[in-house]
Amino acid sequence: MATTWFYAPSIADNWLLPIEEARHCLTVLRHRVGDTLTVVDGKGYQYQVQLSTSDPKRCLVTPIAEPIYTPPRPLAIHLAVSPTKNNSRIEWLLEKVTEIGVEEIHFVATAHAERQTIKIDRLMRVVVSAMKQSKKSRLPVLHPLQPASAWLSQCMQPHKFIAHLTSEAVPLGHVSPTEGAVVVWIGPEGDFSTTELAAAADNGFQVVTVSPYRLRTETAAMVAVEQCNFVAQMKQNL
Amino acid sequence: MATTWFYAPSIADNWLLPIEEARHCLTVLRHRVGDTLTVVDGKGYQYQVQLSTSDPKRCLVTPIAEPIYTPPRPLAIHLAVSPTKNNSRIEWLLEKVTEIGVEEIHFVATAHAERQTIKIDRLMRVVVSAMKQSKKSRLPVLHPLQPASAWLSQCMQPHKFIAHLTSEAVPLGHVSPTEGAVVVWIGPEGDFSTTELAAAADNGFQVVTVSPYRLRTETAAMVAVEQCNFVAQMKQNL
Repeated sequence: MATTWFYAPSIADNWLLPIEEARHCLTVLRHRVGDTLTVVDGKGYQYQVQLSTSDPKRCLVTPIAEPIYTPPRPLAIHLAVSPTKNNSRIEWLLEKVTEIGVEEIHFVATAHAERQTIKIDRLMRVVVSAMKQSKKSRLPVLHPLQPASAWLSQCMQPHKFIAHLTSEAVPLGHVSPTEGAVVVWIGPEGDFSTTELAAAADNGFQVVTVSPYRLRTETAAMVAVEQCNFVAQMKQNL
Repeated sequence: MATTWFYAPSIADNWLLPIEEARHCLTVLRHRVGDTLTVVDGKGYQYQVQLSTSDPKRCLVTPIAEPIYTPPRPLAIHLAVSPTKNNSRIEWLLEKVTEIGVEEIHFVATAHAERQTIKIDRLMRVVVSAMKQSKKSRLPVLHPLQPASAWLSQCMQPHKFIAHLTSEAVPLGHVSPTEGAVVVWIGPEGDFSTTELAAAADNGFQVVTVSPYRLRTETAAMVAVEQCNFVAQMKQNL
């Protein structure tokens, strides 16, 4: 029987469920005082607690065991992507990469993107839900939308890739690392501009391909994250 | 500039666009007599044609070049999956695996699935759309929903895997082949029953895992298809 996890980023400070989580816990799932819950803080800590009050505005819990800590993974996977025209495709993408495993998501405004805005609060709710559903205790970081030039100048990951179909592109699976930090930048629906491609090259990005086929933006993004996970897991298992 | 492809399974017999495709071509995209179109038959053939009539009920085209044939891939990837509770998750899955690359999809009725019906016509439209969008000329085969026992008895693929988290499970990436036919059976939201697991073992299915994390049914299915593609592509490229 799958049990629901709860997200409370300040749990260790106040032992309170945030009001939205408390309402879900009390009203939808009908938990009662004394019930045992699993709460994660999004920073790697998972707590077993007991429900102490049934007021959603002040829903106190009491720890009943030492927290379980999940350390960061050896490879931090960063995905950089432009907003898609259809917002539900970005929401879907965030759900899937959170399940599969991703550390940070960078939203990059590009010249040929069909949308230049995101609703970060709404996207954050999707990521929180996927984290809880997939039983993870670390919340991926969502960075606000930035212009490509500003974003590129801040990219400090030792492994930087840009997915683009050119003759010099190498399969991402051949170059994806097993540790440190990797960032893969996926093009918008209208593709990268030549300025963006040149700026990426200037900033040390290597051109890669993630599929021999033409994939939608969100499919390419998800496939790239899966390939980074897959290569790291395969090599760590060998 | 991305151009729209059209699907006409009997194109080489009658040089007609089916009425839905013709309407889309004439009314939405506003093509006119003399325009050049790309038409695929879903069986591997891609035709360059010219629009000859503008009647959606009898939309004739004229070939202007030899058709381009895409042979079957060395590895035929079969996905077996149960319908998800939320129908849009299956539609999404079909779109994604069609983009990534899949040959056949088997819908299997399992004891703990939350839905026991599918609308194959509607799902077929999703697959056709994804085939055209991702510029493929082969349409994945959708098999109608079958009970697990009947389906298992017909599985003749030389490589048969069932995704299930047990201690004997090996990573799919370690055993996925590069040619022939592979089938991966993904569990429903309520997981496999012990009867289904035993029946799969009796029918030569090996237990595999596709992720160290708890994935939703449709995520696991998509990840499995991507891993089969990835392993075959990596080994073929080496």
